[in-house]
Order: sequence, then structure tokens, then C-alpha cells
Amino acid sequence: MQHRIERVRERIDKLAESARTAEGGVLRLTYTPAYKIGMDLVRGFMEAAGMTVRVDPLGNIFGRYAGQNESLPAVLAGSHLDSVPNGGRFDGALGLITAIECVNAWHDAGWRPPRPVEVVAMVEEEGTQFGIVMFGSQVLTGRMKSQTPELILNRAGRSVAGLLEENGLDKNAFQSACLDPSKFRCFLEFHIEQGEELHRRGLSCGLVTDIVGIYRSWVTITGKANHAGTTRMAARKDALVAAAHLIQKSFEAALQSSDRYVATVGSVEVSPGVINIVPGRVSLPIEIRSITNTEFEVAKDWLAAEFRTIDAKYGVQTEITKTSFIPPTHLDERIVSVLRRAADAAQVKYLEMPSWAGHDAQVMASVMPTAMIFVPSIDGVSHAPQENTHWEDIDLGLRVYLRALTELAGK
Amino acid sequence: MQHRIERVRERIDKLAESARTAEGGVLRLTYTPAYKIGMDLVRGFMEAAGMTVRVDPLGNIFGRYAGQNESLPAVLAGSHLDSVPNGGRFDGALGLITAIECVNAWHDAGWRPPRPVEVVAMVEEEGTQFGIVMFGSQVLTGRMKSQTPELILNRAGRSVAGLLEENGLDKNAFQSACLDPSKFRCFLEFHIEQGEELHRRGLSCGLVTDIVGIYRSWVTITGKANHAGTTRMAARKDALVAAAHLIQKSFEAALQSSDRYVATVGSVEVSPGVINIVPGRVSLPIEIRSITNTEFEVAKDWLAAEFRTIDAKYGVQTEITKTSFIPPTHLDERIVSVLRRAADAAQVKYLEMPSWAGHDAQVMASVMPTAMIFVPSIDGVSHAPQENTHWEDIDLGLRVYLRALTELAGK
Repeated sequence: MQHRIERVRERIDKLAESARTAEGGVLRLTYTPAYKIGMDLVRGFMEAAGMTVRVDPLGNIFGRYAGQNESLPAVLAGSHLDSVPNGGRFDGALGLITAIECVNAWHDAGWRPPRPVEVVAMVEEEGTQFGIVMFGSQVLTGRMKSQTPELILNRAGRSVAGLLEENGLDKNAFQSACLDPSKFRCFLEFHIEQGEELHRRGLSCGLVTDIVGIYRSWVTITGKANHAGTTRMAARKDALVAAAHLIQKSFEAALQSSDRYVATVGSVEVSPGVINIVPGRVSLPIEIRSITNTEFEVAKDWLAAEFRTIDAKYGVQTEITKTSFIPPTHLDERIVSVLRRAADAAQVKYLEMPSWAGHDAQVMASVMPTAMIFVPSIDGVSHAPQENTHWEDIDLGLRVYLRALTELAGK
Repeated sequence: MQHRIERVRERIDKLAESARTAEGGVLRLTYTPAYKIGMDLVRGFMEAAGMTVRVDPLGNIFGRYAGQNESLPAVLAGSHLDSVPNGGRFDGALGLITAIECVNAWHDAGWRPPRPVEVVAMVEEEGTQFGIVMFGSQVLTGRMKSQTPELILNRAGRSVAGLLEENGLDKNAFQSACLDPSKFRCFLEFHIEQGEELHRRGLSCGLVTDIVGIYRSWVTITGKANHAGTTRMAARKDALVAAAHLIQKSFEAALQSSDRYVATVGSVEVSPGVINIVPGRVSLPIEIRSITNTEFEVAKDWLAAEFRTIDAKYGVQTEITKTSFIPPTHLDERIVSVLRRAADAAQVKYLEMPSWAGHDAQVMASVMPTAMIFVPSIDGVSHAPQENTHWEDIDLGLRVYLRALTELAGK
């Protein structure tokens, strides 16, 4: 087993080195030169593990390890290849390399599973290139079919269509890259937790039962821009003071919910944004996450009431300009029970837990039975160069993964 | 008198048209092409009023109307030529055109005052080109002498020195453009109020007794950036939630002061500023204005206490990275009494009032006796295309101005 974890480590390091930032982090945004170097590395790892590689019309890489019976639905395993800006070396990459490693172990042993197994390296989970989280899995599952790739622009004004063509891919990928779910038995994703639950409990492995739902509401508060000297305090319609009320109340409400939901305001845009002008308009996104559907209704009611409060108190008009909602996902109990058996057999202590981070697995779960394995993040740190996991924990997680995939690839 | 106000109106319109924005406002930033067109117009107006024009090494325009006794200290009158982006047509410009009009009235009547009178069109009062408010008057009064023009950069990275040279001016203007105060008797500035005090009271004229002091504190709050899903509410060190507390408390404290001071947070910078990351750092400027020095001490004590509160409550570190302070200015009582007599003689009702906006006059007051005349701003609107004043009010203000200048230009 020492050999196996050494190979995982070596491949993780190679991927990280190929996209290293000055701060010691990783920068691998979809379709960038660093991303293509990453694609070539993954292709090489897949081929070394005995897989036949194809790149789909969106740039998702599939490595197929033939089964004894090629007509059976395949087991699908994998994660995403992209990173956040200056992220860590494990987020996404570890899920790819461990899936490849399981196949490599069979290949080394000369074993061929009854079913075919495919490992997938998906594009853009982090939403940093096109602003669409879980972009790769959303295309694979057909969720993007009704979207127009010419109309989805990144911050630089480049469209998905333009970038696809420029990279020798298919601008009709929203149609042509959809998977046929009947050809797959299930999907498994191995990932770092990105929270501190496992680390705090001293456990090496998490079996994910649910994935968090995410409600996002883009709010615009309109007051009145005015001179910061001559405008009496009582006459002000200060959009930023109203926004501050909302930010404070969002935090307090979530704190009081005892983590039944979490709420975050991650950015604020102030207009005109000048030191000596009372802010006339503020735009901000409020993100609410919960594992249970009912909490979103509670939070939305509460938000609407706060909007009325600040409108009355500060003389502003508050409106929601856009919302998005990814419902919470309950993962497949049969697949989770396979993972449980695998962990027990490998004598690895585990926690059954929800994931408070979003993952491609929650999208894949809409078309096939899906489950996830977590390994701990030291101090819960992720999306930062300091993101880390003990190799002993990765090794134990990998044992569970290999056993589970071996069982699922059986008849 | 009809003729006189018509000429003011025509000149104001010409200046506004020469720098018109698509939104109907005015954009005349120091040294830009629009600014130079404005300089040429002002030069022409001054010459038409019988003045001899010179441009000083900084680009300030001086028009001199010779007195009967040229060896007496001159009366100086004027305002600034620059505008804020998309500002109104009156801010600054009205003070230039009315001062020129007073001289033009003497010139039309063939009258020569005992003392020489100079009208000055000053550069950069708004601080929008170099980020230095009252830049022109600060140079004229020698306050910039110790500064290095090579080191003062605008947002585009251009230095004052570079822009001066490029525009055929003197890069040593911080020394060469200083006035000799002994050559001047006093300074008068005519300006729109930019607040709604006069408008609300239905008065046409304000005699300014004091100009507001401005304390600015640039604050950085450092918390910890973290995942917006996996980080429990109680474990967060959210710099934006802490900032929201500060913004709210600043507003409430100023409101409770019954306008003994006003407080404004005009902008906020959030890092990393991403929808799904708990904000790790927030920078914001807090501006406090008051007419009395003691209020600044009250406000600073209160601010320091709030910093300790948020550090303890939200697990953040708050620090002040920069401060600036322009003390409140008490204008010259003797000149104000000249204005009072002029208003009484012209039968114009007036209000003696402080200015809550900053003006070149407060800088000039440090080297010579200074006072200001205000005319009302409709609804208090300024720094916007909607900035407006009734021509009847400008006419009445102009009568007071002409009488006052005529008295001051006497022996």
C-alpha cells in the first residue's frame, strides 16, 4: 500500500507544480494554458493505469477501463480538474488521482472488473472562468441544454462558445456532451471535506449522506446619493447603512439558527463609492445554505421581513434582482451502504455526514445513484495555498474507495 | 440689472456646454482638454471685463483689474474651475463668473476702484484628478511646498510633475506659484450652498461664518477568509460583518449627536470579495465633519471604543492605516460684517451659517482675511447634473457680492 500512496502523492505534486502560483497555491482555470497542461498530465496518468482516454466536446476527460462485460452499465468515478484562484493542491485533483489510482491498482494486479469503469476529470466546478459552478457536471447531465453558449460571458467578455471553438472543442457541447445515464450504474466522488468536522473529531473518513442546498439572492438597495457634509443625518437615505443592517441581521439570524442554516454576504458594491458622498446604491449577494429544504423557507421569510424593515427605517427601496437555488441533495442510500461496508472491511473509522460545500456529485445525483467519500481538511482550510490533508488519512480513504469501487464494478 | 444676470447666465451656459456629459452634467477635470477649453473661456470673460490676465505656474488663472492706487494690497475673489465627474454647472463656475461680473459692471460703468482687484480661477478643488482636495489653494498658500510633485500620482499613475510639464506649466509650481499674502487685502468666494438650509428657509443668501472641519480615517478590518458553506457561524471571523457593525454605529452616533457632527462611510472594499467566501479583510474610510473642534475628540474616542468592541465580538483586528484632518475654520468677522452691511443695503434677507462643505476659502483663510457668500441649492442637490439654483437668487446674491467688493476695493 505504501507504493500506492506514494504514486498518488507524486501525481498530486506534478499537477500542483504545473499550475503553481507565486504564493504557493494552484491556479488552473478552465481552458487556460495551465489547465491544458493539467489535461495532458491526467491523460498520461489514465493511460498509465491501462485506460483508454477520450476528451468529450466540452473538454471533460474520460478514461475507460474495460470490463469483462462491456455491455454492462459502467461505474463512473472522478472529480473536477479546475481550481479556484490561488487554491490548494487537493480540491478536485485528489478525487481524480485517487479514482485513477484505484484503476491503476487493478491494472498493476492484472485484474479486470466484471463491469467497465470510467474515470472523469470534469471542467469548471468552481465557477471561476464562466461564473457557473458545477459547469462540467451540469453539461454532462443535460442541465445546460436550454442555455446558449454564445450568451454566457466571462468577466473578460469572452463567451463559452468562443472559448470552446478557440480550444478546438465543440461550441454545441451543451447538446453533444450530454451523457446517456442508462450507460452508467452510479457515480462516486472522492474529495477533501473543506470543513473541520473530520479533523476536529480525529476521523480519517466521511461518508456523505446529503449535499447542502444553496440559495443565492442578489439584492440591490437604492437610497439617495448626496453630499457627505451638507446632508443632515436625519435626511439621509444611505444605502450602505441599510446594507450594513442587512449584513448584521443575516449573520445574527444564521448564528441563532445553531447552524441549521449558514448565511454569508461575500461582497458589496457601493455606488458612487466615493469617500465624501452618501452611498446612493448598494448591491450585494446573500447566500444561504442548508441541508434541509424547510430552512430555506424560514430564511426567505425572514429576509423579506428585513427588507421591509430597512426600507421603512432608512428610506431606501430594496429589491431582489436575481436568485438561484440548488436544492439540497440526499445521496443514494444503497451506494452509501456499499461505502459503509467497505469502510468496515478496511477497518477505517468513519462519520456519516452532510457536505456543506457544493460538489459535482449533487448534480450527477440527478441522473444516477451517487455517493461521496470525504477525507479531512487540516483545520478545515480550503480554497487557499494552506489547504492540506495528512497522507495517512488519504491512504485510509483510498482503501475504502478501492474496496467500494471493486464491489460496485462487480456484477 | 437684468442685463447683468443675463450675462452671467450666458457665461455659465457656455462653460457648461464646453464640458457637457451624456447625462447632461459637467466633466472638467484639471488639465484635461475640457479644462483647457474652460480656461480659454474664462480668459476671454476676464479680458471682456477689462482685466489683464496671467496664468500662474500651476495653471491658476488671475485676472487683474487695475486700481487707482496699484501699490495697495489687492482684493482677491474667485473660486475653482474644475468639476466633479458628471457634476453640475454651478459648483465652482458660479463663483468665477459672478466675480468676473462684478468687475465687468465697474468696467461697463467706466469705474475704477481705489484698490486693484484680482479674480482667480483655481485648479483642482474637488480632488478628482490628483486626489488632493483644494489643491489649487493649497499650492497658492504654500501648504504644498514640502511635497514632491513627482511623487503625487493620479489613478492613471501620472504624476503632478509629469502633467504640469506636459501642459507647458512649471513642475516647480509648488514653490513658484505661492502667493505673497502681503499683496492681498482679503479673499472672497461666492458659491452654491450644496445643502438645503437656504432652500428650506426660502432665503436667497447665506453669509458663511465657519467652514466645516473634516477628519478622515482609513480603517482596515482583518478577519479570516473561509469557505461560506463549511465554516460554522460561531467559528467565523467575518470582516464584513464587523464592518457592518461599524457602519451602523457610525450612523447612529452621528444621528444621536443631533448634527453636532456628521459621519459617513462612502465606500467599502471587500477581500476576497467572492460570493461563497467569508470576507477576510475589509477596508473603508470613515469621514467625520464638524464645525467645532471638540466634536472630533468625542468622535475619535467613540470610534476607538467601537474598534475594541468589534475586535472582541467578531475575532477581527481593526487598525487605522491613514488619517487626515482639516480643522474647522472660523472666517474673518470684519469681512463678514462688510457682507452683512452689503446685504442690508441691497435689502436681501440672509442667514449667517456655517458651511458643511469644504471650500478653497478655508485654505485661503490661513493667509488672508476671508469670507464667503452662499446662494441656495434647490433641494440641496449638488455634484450631480440636477444641481440647480433659481436665477432670481443668483441675482440677489450678486447684488450683495458687488456691493461688498465695491466697499472692500475702497481705501
